[in-house]
Amino acid sequence: MPKRDKTPRALKINALVLEKGLKDFIRDAFRGAGFTKGIVGLSGGVDSALVATLGARALGVENVLAVLMPYRTSSPGSISDAVSLAEQLGIRHEKVDISPMVDAYLSQAGGQEEPGNIRKGNVMARQRMIVLYDISARESALVMGTSNKTEIMLGYGTQFGDTACAINPIGDLYKTQVWQLAEALGVPKMIVDKKPTADLWAGQTDEGELGFSYRQVDRLLYFMFEERLSLEDLIKKGFDKSFIEKVKMIVRRNRFKSRPPIIARVSRLSPKRAHQAAGMIPGGEIPR
Amino acid sequence: MPKRDKTPRALKINALVLEKGLKDFIRDAFRGAGFTKGIVGLSGGVDSALVATLGARALGVENVLAVLMPYRTSSPGSISDAVSLAEQLGIRHEKVDISPMVDAYLSQAGGQEEPGNIRKGNVMARQRMIVLYDISARESALVMGTSNKTEIMLGYGTQFGDTACAINPIGDLYKTQVWQLAEALGVPKMIVDKKPTADLWAGQTDEGELGFSYRQVDRLLYFMFEERLSLEDLIKKGFDKSFIEKVKMIVRRNRFKSRPPIIARVSRLSPKRAHQAAGMIPGGEIPR
Repeated sequence: MPKRDKTPRALKINALVLEKGLKDFIRDAFRGAGFTKGIVGLSGGVDSALVATLGARALGVENVLAVLMPYRTSSPGSISDAVSLAEQLGIRHEKVDISPMVDAYLSQAGGQEEPGNIRKGNVMARQRMIVLYDISARESALVMGTSNKTEIMLGYGTQFGDTACAINPIGDLYKTQVWQLAEALGVPKMIVDKKPTADLWAGQTDEGELGFSYRQVDRLLYFMFEERLSLEDLIKKGFDKSFIEKVKMIVRRNRFKSRPPIIARVSRLSPKRAHQAAGMIPGGEIPR
Repeated sequence: MPKRDKTPRALKINALVLEKGLKDFIRDAFRGAGFTKGIVGLSGGVDSALVATLGARALGVENVLAVLMPYRTSSPGSISDAVSLAEQLGIRHEKVDISPMVDAYLSQAGGQEEPGNIRKGNVMARQRMIVLYDISARESALVMGTSNKTEIMLGYGTQFGDTACAINPIGDLYKTQVWQLAEALGVPKMIVDKKPTADLWAGQTDEGELGFSYRQVDRLLYFMFEERLSLEDLIKKGFDKSFIEKVKMIVRRNRFKSRPPIIARVSRLSPKRAHQAAGMIPGGEIPR
């Protein structure tokens, strides 16, 4: 159990309590929105595997649809792991190849300069959003998000892409907590132990791209933001000053991703506040 | 001047004051985000024409790029109006045909059931978002939004599609106010007087689809939400009870579109609050 032992003590979870809380959250959110069915993009990674598992337990296996959306360079192992998981859970799954849409754009976009990996990755993540939302409309289902707290905090995701969803049951769980809960809920070891990757290009790993491990950064994010330790105290905890500064900068640079657009205010009541006011009109709420 | 005369008194604008305020807003928002260039999707309609005009005046014509993104069924008149406007303003423009991406998906999606116009329209709006965001990355430019307050309140737009943007200078202006300001700023009459349409299918008009006119609904939205008149008082103002109920229902059903995802809260500090906390770390903010 080398992995478990390295989980920071403060980030250890009580899987039983957490499972119950998240199932209740999912049921309440779906009931509140007037939906019975959920849809999730299954990548073969641990985050979407956990969301599919929680969804199946909360809503019933007949009410969860998994959508596999490989690009032509996606690892075949990712797809077969995703299929196995859907079959093991007993949920429906379907596959939509995003290569035709992605390539149709990239062949036009590559005019003067070939788009780099970041731009290509964003196009792929957004094409998946289009597929997921279109199928959700066909199925009258709510899109369940799979971004974890580490990714959201670091902005390690594509705005209007993989971060787009109606409800997200794991958005307040750090990656190290996702691992623990997934293991406790019986997500296959093959998926839990896999190196995290957005699978956007061959050989990509999250930790390679970020330049640090999830275990390191989760612990730092926790002590920096939730315990609000000072720089001195963080250094006493064993964090490198340059690592602290780097993570602070990443968080700050990426905050825009979870913010609504900045709208020029010219009236007494912005559209946002008007929408809030609309919630006070009696008659129940039908958000979607 | 029949149109001007029908503008509800409460919604009349002072174009000079508004122009100055919105130009200041644009300059401040761009400076705050550390950007000098803006990008806008130009449809040939009045909303995007106004945003392009305000952007050119606030940022300088050399700093605004207009992107035309027709689908094969888009009206040729829309495209030529958009090109004329860009030329008149003196801003750069480029065209990306979204037909290959849209059709690549729709040909796969049309399995058991052909997607209807709503689903097709959403796919188109989201493909345009992909193009606009990708070009914004290439150009290091901020995406300027073109949804007006009427559309935002009614949810008459596609989530992660035409509503996606970094900053929106006209999101607190009702459609009838957009018309007034556009006219005052010299947007060509051809564009200002055109019947509003999302141009998603031939013959589509906003007002035909919604079942009421912008003048009617703007006046109602204003008195209902900003003046908070009671049902009785709204009826005294001349609004039909069934119209009031219909608009209330549309607003309520569509509020989800301007809301962030619902994230299960399990820690003391949600990612959103952690991001707010990150704003308090000294060192300036770099949101994008």
